[in-house]
Amino acid sequence: MTLTEEQKAEIESQSSQQLYTKRPISPGLEEMLFNVFPVLDHGFIRVIDYMGNDSAIVQAARVSYGTGTKKVSEDRGLIRYLMRHYHTTPFEMCEIKFHVKLPIFVARQWIRHRTASVNEYSARYSIMDREFYLPDPHVLAAQSNINHQGRGEVLSAEQAEVVLTLLRNDAQNCYDDYEKMLRSPKENGYGLARELARINLTLNSYSQWYWKVNLHNLFHFLQLRIDMHAQYEIRVYAEAMLKIVRVWVPLACEAFEDYRRDAVTFSSTMMKIIGKLLRGESVKQADSGLSKREWKEMMQVLDQYKLEK
Amino acid sequence: MTLTEEQKAEIESQSSQQLYTKRPISPGLEEMLFNVFPVLDHGFIRVIDYMGNDSAIVQAARVSYGTGTKKVSEDRGLIRYLMRHYHTTPFEMCEIKFHVKLPIFVARQWIRHRTASVNEYSARYSIMDREFYLPDPHVLAAQSNINHQGRGEVLSAEQAEVVLTLLRNDAQNCYDDYEKMLRSPKENGYGLARELARINLTLNSYSQWYWKVNLHNLFHFLQLRIDMHAQYEIRVYAEAMLKIVRVWVPLACEAFEDYRRDAVTFSSTMMKIIGKLLRGESVKQADSGLSKREWKEMMQVLDQYKLEK
Amino acid sequence: MTLTEEQKAEIESQSSQQLYTKRPISPGLEEMLFNVFPVLDHGFIRVIDYMGNDSAIVQAARVSYGTGTKKVSEDRGLIRYLMRHYHTTPFEMCEIKFHVKLPIFVARQWIRHRTASVNEYSARYSIMDREFYLPDPHVLAAQSNINHQGRGEVLSAEQAEVVLTLLRNDAQNCYDDYEKMLRSPKENGYGLARELARINLTLNSYSQWYWKVNLHNLFHFLQLRIDMHAQYEIRVYAEAMLKIVRVWVPLACEAFEDYRRDAVTFSSTMMKIIGKLLRGESVKQADSGLSKREWKEMMQVLDQYKLEK
Amino acid sequence: MTLTEEQKAEIESQSSQQLYTKRPISPGLEEMLFNVFPVLDHGFIRVIDYMGNDSAIVQAARVSYGTGTKKVSEDRGLIRYLMRHYHTTPFEMCEIKFHVKLPIFVARQWIRHRTASVNEYSARYSIMDREFYLPDPHVLAAQSNINHQGRGEVLSAEQAEVVLTLLRNDAQNCYDDYEKMLRSPKENGYGLARELARINLTLNSYSQWYWKVNLHNLFHFLQLRIDMHAQYEIRVYAEAMLKIVRVWVPLACEAFEDYRRDAVTFSSTMMKIIGKLLRGESVKQADSGLSKREWKEMMQVLDQYKLEK
Repeated sequence: MTLTEEQKAEIESQSSQQLYTKRPISPGLEEMLFNVFPVLDHGFIRVIDYMGNDSAIVQAARVSYGTGTKKVSEDRGLIRYLMRHYHTTPFEMCEIKFHVKLPIFVARQWIRHRTASVNEYSARYSIMDREFYLPDPHVLAAQSNINHQGRGEVLSAEQAEVVLTLLRNDAQNCYDDYEKMLRSPKENGYGLARELARINLTLNSYSQWYWKVNLHNLFHFLQLRIDMHAQYEIRVYAEAMLKIVRVWVPLACEAFEDYRRDAVTFSSTMMKIIGKLLRGESVKQADSGLSKREWKEMMQVLDQYKLEK
Repeated sequence: MTLTEEQKAEIESQSSQQLYTKRPISPGLEEMLFNVFPVLDHGFIRVIDYMGNDSAIVQAARVSYGTGTKKVSEDRGLIRYLMRHYHTTPFEMCEIKFHVKLPIFVARQWIRHRTASVNEYSARYSIMDREFYLPDPHVLAAQSNINHQGRGEVLSAEQAEVVLTLLRNDAQNCYDDYEKMLRSPKENGYGLARELARINLTLNSYSQWYWKVNLHNLFHFLQLRIDMHAQYEIRVYAEAMLKIVRVWVPLACEAFEDYRRDAVTFSSTMMKIIGKLLRGESVKQADSGLSKREWKEMMQVLDQYKLEK
Repeated sequence: MTLTEEQKAEIESQSSQQLYTKRPISPGLEEMLFNVFPVLDHGFIRVIDYMGNDSAIVQAARVSYGTGTKKVSEDRGLIRYLMRHYHTTPFEMCEIKFHVKLPIFVARQWIRHRTASVNEYSARYSIMDREFYLPDPHVLAAQSNINHQGRGEVLSAEQAEVVLTLLRNDAQNCYDDYEKMLRSPKENGYGLARELARINLTLNSYSQWYWKVNLHNLFHFLQLRIDMHAQYEIRVYAEAMLKIVRVWVPLACEAFEDYRRDAVTFSSTMMKIIGKLLRGESVKQADSGLSKREWKEMMQVLDQYKLEK
Repeated sequence: MTLTEEQKAEIESQSSQQLYTKRPISPGLEEMLFNVFPVLDHGFIRVIDYMGNDSAIVQAARVSYGTGTKKVSEDRGLIRYLMRHYHTTPFEMCEIKFHVKLPIFVARQWIRHRTASVNEYSARYSIMDREFYLPDPHVLAAQSNINHQGRGEVLSAEQAEVVLTLLRNDAQNCYDDYEKMLRSPKENGYGLARELARINLTLNSYSQWYWKVNLHNLFHFLQLRIDMHAQYEIRVYAEAMLKIVRVWVPLACEAFEDYRRDAVTFSSTMMKIIGKLLRGESVKQADSGLSKREWKEMMQVLDQYKLEK
């Protein structure tokens, strides 16, 4: 992961400043502010700014629902109540701004979440860094046989080496030609417009952006991207953000993990099956109303909780 | 429910027109187009236009997920898969436009759903009709003792009569003064600006709007507003819309009802309890990790499905 | 304007706290934080929290456009460049949260701006205050003869007195019946559900909300609501907010006022007329390609700037 | 431009169908429905579905502003009034759905417009086509000396040939390795997961999507992307869409072109200069309050209209 000298100096200067404010703060997040958390081989995530904390959620809810006492135990109960009953507007009252360095193919998935503000490094204005994502061999996997969009077995060491060599050489070769096209004719280049030359770069090239989002939309993002069906390379960013959110708004994050991330939703057909199971009846897929695939997914979940001690 | 003569003529003329189109149609919804479905005492809902049908959802999904055969059974399976796994973007490919007449206090709840397009009758430009929502006695209920935002027992016939008289008289009186303030001095009025006079109207006055929304956002609206915690007066609009959606996109609507409206979500703590119950262990609230309120809500749901045959 | 005792205590306690932060601050806005700025007869606006300052806009722009020196004069130039060329994303990097007390008919216009987060006082949960907006006699005006949605001449003192008496009596009467319907039968009331009783209130009743918005969307709101065609009662809120924004992000606000609020846009047809005028030719409405109304509006603007010294 | 056989059959079948509808239609757009309009070397744009027409805008406006006569001349006047005064909600009542084939670097700019619905071809599920954007020599230009994000002079024929060879070879080479990584080990490949192999592709690879947007947001998109500062490769898509919009909603599109695309906005400082010029005074940059750059831009615009006959 490479920060420019200028970025390092900026981080240094920001981290050392201490200003007075009357605004609510999150003491834990203040500690982490501006710090670089590495993700993937050259990526990172860092918090640039934030607004609000657990109390801001409670305060907004109390505008709507009237006043009450303010002990921490009650704040926790109220926040859990809001999460459980999908009273989502108070969570919009918190906001966070990240600085993220990420491969372009990850950026393309990420940007599909429309309810955020973004400023991305522009390859029309500026020259891209010579940095590409090359997967760790342990995540370099074959196409899954059962999941059309997923990964199956990890490649053998030999296979992985060949694949990584292909990825590395192609990315470097494209970048070298990118640079050649950009260089001025005096330097044996072609002086090509930056907005054109960049089309030669590969999708694993790294970009950077500022990404600002409210807590409700962030939870939605995390819910979808922490899921095991999300691509590994975006999941690791989501996991890094979740750790930060836990420090920022511990009560809201605990409620999110319990009522969203780790929650299980059963369709009405599935609920009838659970009813039968609780009555002690046996149910078979054929009579269940579920497809084989749904049945299998449901039984896996139930078995997991049945076996858990 | 009152339509102006002009609206009636417009409906007549729209309903009788038959044009050729190459666009996908929903034969069932074509039948219903422009028809007035009464809601509450003077309100209504009618479909003005729509885009797409079940096949449009499938078609959009197949852009993403590749092609395949197109038999109806497979369309159904694909739509259910999309709904179950929260692949929501194909549902955004359908759009519907309603003409709604509704009391202002309902409009205030409705508009909180931000992802729709709205053109409302403007009381700055035009004069409001003399129409107010007066609840049916059977929905005129006392404040709930257990739910801070809900209704409890229905009022007695005598109480209801008094309350309805208060509501009716106050609304009529405010409207009469609204009209008086609007009338020109020549007609013994004050010629007050419409944008000022209207502030004298009560919140049960009826307004009208065009409301246009995509199917994904409409399902989200229906999910929240069909819920038994939603206020009765908006719930009846949601129910009227759901009936229309069932005709428009029957496969998507069936999936919505199964995987959303009638689905049950359990937190991770609750799933552990279900695991114990399925193992045949008994669980008590005290050791469950749930609050009394959560415990009660969960047991009600489980009992309901346990008793259902 | 009435704050509850609890609100006053909260303001007192918030205003006196001094915490350390590493986040960027706006020294001017820190001074104003939590203060109550009265608007209309009982309304107010106050800032509850904010994120970012002029430098945050510059910082985000520099992510996109590359680095540079950081002198204030250059920040100003960059911010003006962004505003002029509609590079709006850096302005989204600042966020502000207001606590607003406002009449319901104003809230209805305000909420049409969809790109903000809102928590409103809920009349389903809580009892509304006995407070209504009654216009100052000097803004109590007749319907405009030329503008279908505007005000014309101010009412005479006698007319104003009658109108205000109507408004006051109706609002009070409706409120008294609201309270009567809410009171328990033991206290000679009917114990009606709050969500029903509130439908008897008039549209000039005051409500409250938290409203959180980013700077780009706030500028858009101000642009539309500071306009002389906006209703006076929402314009005064926009003006109060603009004063706050000027303190918070002085460079961005100056750019907004110059390039948006006070800017004039001419259609291509109008530009041809300006071309002729600059060549010294005379133009008449009949040959101008403009309607009479457009012509009149255009000439008013040009005359204003022609006469200005 | 390559359509799959399946797409061709689908277009054929869609184009030949004639169904009855009661919905408003746009006769011109019906003619164009499903047709392929080529853009760039392999891209295209085609309309898949639409909702509404000029009359739908008028109808929605009349809900807000009251009724009136319906002659075409009045529709035109009303639509122009709405556009001129930024009454944008009636334009949201029309919706259009495009099928677009476009290079990934164009898709990355396009997607920054957040207020649309998108289903993109997924390279996690499916295999990408072997198609890359290679610029025409006449648009292959050097970096601009004056605009940090723009193009200057066109490359010489020799330079262009070398650059195109670099672009072509790198794209083909990356694609060949992409295919090799995807192939099964039996076929001398590595069976790599599709979601990983695709990271080796270059940014000029073509993708496809369905893009659905309402007319207001489409005009905003066109406004920004038809601008001469937009990158050529997205501008040609905007221009192709504008031609379609002109057929679909001719009155709205004419108003857009006059009051938005070809309109000129002057800041308050600039308006003072125009005032002086109209009074016959001379103004110099030094006293104008404008920077040199702003002054130059303004004088260019004025000269253009001054010289136009």
